[in-house]
Amino acid sequence: MTPSSESFTPINQIGEFGLIDRLRDVLAAASDTPEALIQGIGDDAAVYRVGDGRVHVVTTDALVEGVHFDRTFTPMRYLGWKAVATNVSDVVAMNAQPRYATVALALPNSVSVEQAEALYGGMAEACQRYGLSVVGGDVTAAARLTLSVTVIGEAEESAVVYRRGAQVGDLLCVTGDLGSAAAGLKVLLAGKQGFEAGGDGESEAAAQPNLTDFAYAVERQLYPQARLDRIRHWAEVGVRPRALIDISDGLASEVHHLANASGHGAVIEAGLLPIHVQTFKAAERFEEAPLSLALYGGEDYELLFAIPESEKDKMDANTFAVVGQVVEADAGVTLRMPEGEVIPLEARGFDHFG
Amino acid sequence: MTPSSESFTPINQIGEFGLIDRLRDVLAAASDTPEALIQGIGDDAAVYRVGDGRVHVVTTDALVEGVHFDRTFTPMRYLGWKAVATNVSDVVAMNAQPRYATVALALPNSVSVEQAEALYGGMAEACQRYGLSVVGGDVTAAARLTLSVTVIGEAEESAVVYRRGAQVGDLLCVTGDLGSAAAGLKVLLAGKQGFEAGGDGESEAAAQPNLTDFAYAVERQLYPQARLDRIRHWAEVGVRPRALIDISDGLASEVHHLANASGHGAVIEAGLLPIHVQTFKAAERFEEAPLSLALYGGEDYELLFAIPESEKDKMDANTFAVVGQVVEADAGVTLRMPEGEVIPLEARGFDHFG
Repeated sequence: MTPSSESFTPINQIGEFGLIDRLRDVLAAASDTPEALIQGIGDDAAVYRVGDGRVHVVTTDALVEGVHFDRTFTPMRYLGWKAVATNVSDVVAMNAQPRYATVALALPNSVSVEQAEALYGGMAEACQRYGLSVVGGDVTAAARLTLSVTVIGEAEESAVVYRRGAQVGDLLCVTGDLGSAAAGLKVLLAGKQGFEAGGDGESEAAAQPNLTDFAYAVERQLYPQARLDRIRHWAEVGVRPRALIDISDGLASEVHHLANASGHGAVIEAGLLPIHVQTFKAAERFEEAPLSLALYGGEDYELLFAIPESEKDKMDANTFAVVGQVVEADAGVTLRMPEGEVIPLEARGFDHFG
Repeated sequence: MTPSSESFTPINQIGEFGLIDRLRDVLAAASDTPEALIQGIGDDAAVYRVGDGRVHVVTTDALVEGVHFDRTFTPMRYLGWKAVATNVSDVVAMNAQPRYATVALALPNSVSVEQAEALYGGMAEACQRYGLSVVGGDVTAAARLTLSVTVIGEAEESAVVYRRGAQVGDLLCVTGDLGSAAAGLKVLLAGKQGFEAGGDGESEAAAQPNLTDFAYAVERQLYPQARLDRIRHWAEVGVRPRALIDISDGLASEVHHLANASGHGAVIEAGLLPIHVQTFKAAERFEEAPLSLALYGGEDYELLFAIPESEKDKMDANTFAVVGQVVEADAGVTLRMPEGEVIPLEARGFDHFG
């Protein structure tokens, strides 16, 4: 082995995506691409042929205490659910069916056997809902609770949809609403601060949002739903999007990924974004723009997809919203405000090292 | 969702294997076994059919800073290598070829971009050596460096070897030597203590083992080799063991797993265990029994396998050692000392919550 470099570049200097690019280069320099591998790093999941015209897809996501979740307001069952659902979302974003999962769980001493069982109970519930099985895992001690889940899915090779593939003129569509999961997180964090501040109960009650006023948003944050229902609907009505990605880091970031991978630009219509009434209420309460939550909020786990206009009417109109269009690369990625002004749409999403 | 239980049972009260059993029960209660799944939790890797008479196997292992490794004496390249090699070892222990890997990496701020690249460089090196590719991953921030790797392998369904399947009278064999990785860890830990103690250099030098005297043992600890060479040799000479497991937690623990899964007992001959001269030296230095390192040391990543006596001469005699025999279940799992005394062999291995 060769010794490692002596330089020290802090990770936040190049950011999460910059780091991922550099690590991908290290791997690419070292190995040949196996013949059966269709897609490696760079989409929602990797894709490889398994025979009989079928492919498997595989994806991994880690949830780290203090980074992705706060144990003070995240019940263990929800955490287990979310760890599975977010990985299922990546499989769904390849237009594939989830089949198997493995789990690497690192547990601090402060977690009891019963809490670990509740965590696994939530994973089991998500597995039942989405039709997959946990087939392996590793349990170890750690200072912070960390949960890494890998999900393997299956599809006909011809059914898989990548981030690339959108064509100029295609409609950009999203499922569900945007920004409510981020609104829910703000509500939970404010509730925690109010609780920690203590006080006489009067001023405290004024500072703390009423959770029941934001029940939908809180549920979107703690109990996200992978959009397996949508890709099943597409299969039923014979629609296959040209490009597809799940919305985990916020719409703005995902539009850039889809447009870049497809070699085109995109325009998003601010006035067409589906925003829930509780997201508006939370935005008002926390003095944020609702549009900002919808574009940069993250953790919605909805789908962004591109289809030719001719395909639009095949789908149930209640299952998606048109939010923009694919345009020439020269035009870049932009946001058109309801008043008509067109501004560049920043790729800004959530950066764990920011 | 239902609320979780109010009881608090500390994990170390039931231990790592006890916890795994309880978590497996939670999962089993919730889901049907998919038709294509041949082996779920309970062997070195899960096994599922992918078509054309072939199966895939999948396994996950996490390495957590402060639990599995100490950054003060673990170079990043070695850590990356080990994370891949230990998972490859589990794939090999199913008699399958490694193909794809995913990586979930959680990085503290104290790790630089260059160190992360060195870590990935070690993973890339292991991937080249063992013929697999990293196809996906997740990079996130964390308080402690945590590295979860999942490896997917491939085999003919008829070639796969499980822990179960050993028959009474079969020879129990191991590859390589036992206990040297644990000896290497003791050397590294003693070196660190001596360094931290500081001093005038005289008494310090006396306390610190000379690393070059223990180069082999240290390399076994930092740079373990998955035994892909051995299963390739078996394929060449037409040998398929009846039962197979990799030795990650120490021979004693693995013999119990293999014997229990096969429904039999086993006797291990203490006088036949392959122990390296540096393991004897380390045992003397740290006042431990060499036999104890060989039986309970862990992290050897060698293979334990059962074959009928008639198969023995097909294999190159330099590639394995016979260390015992499969016996009736009534006889339990025992250790025969060189003087002839037979004592029960404890299942004791490494327990992260112990």
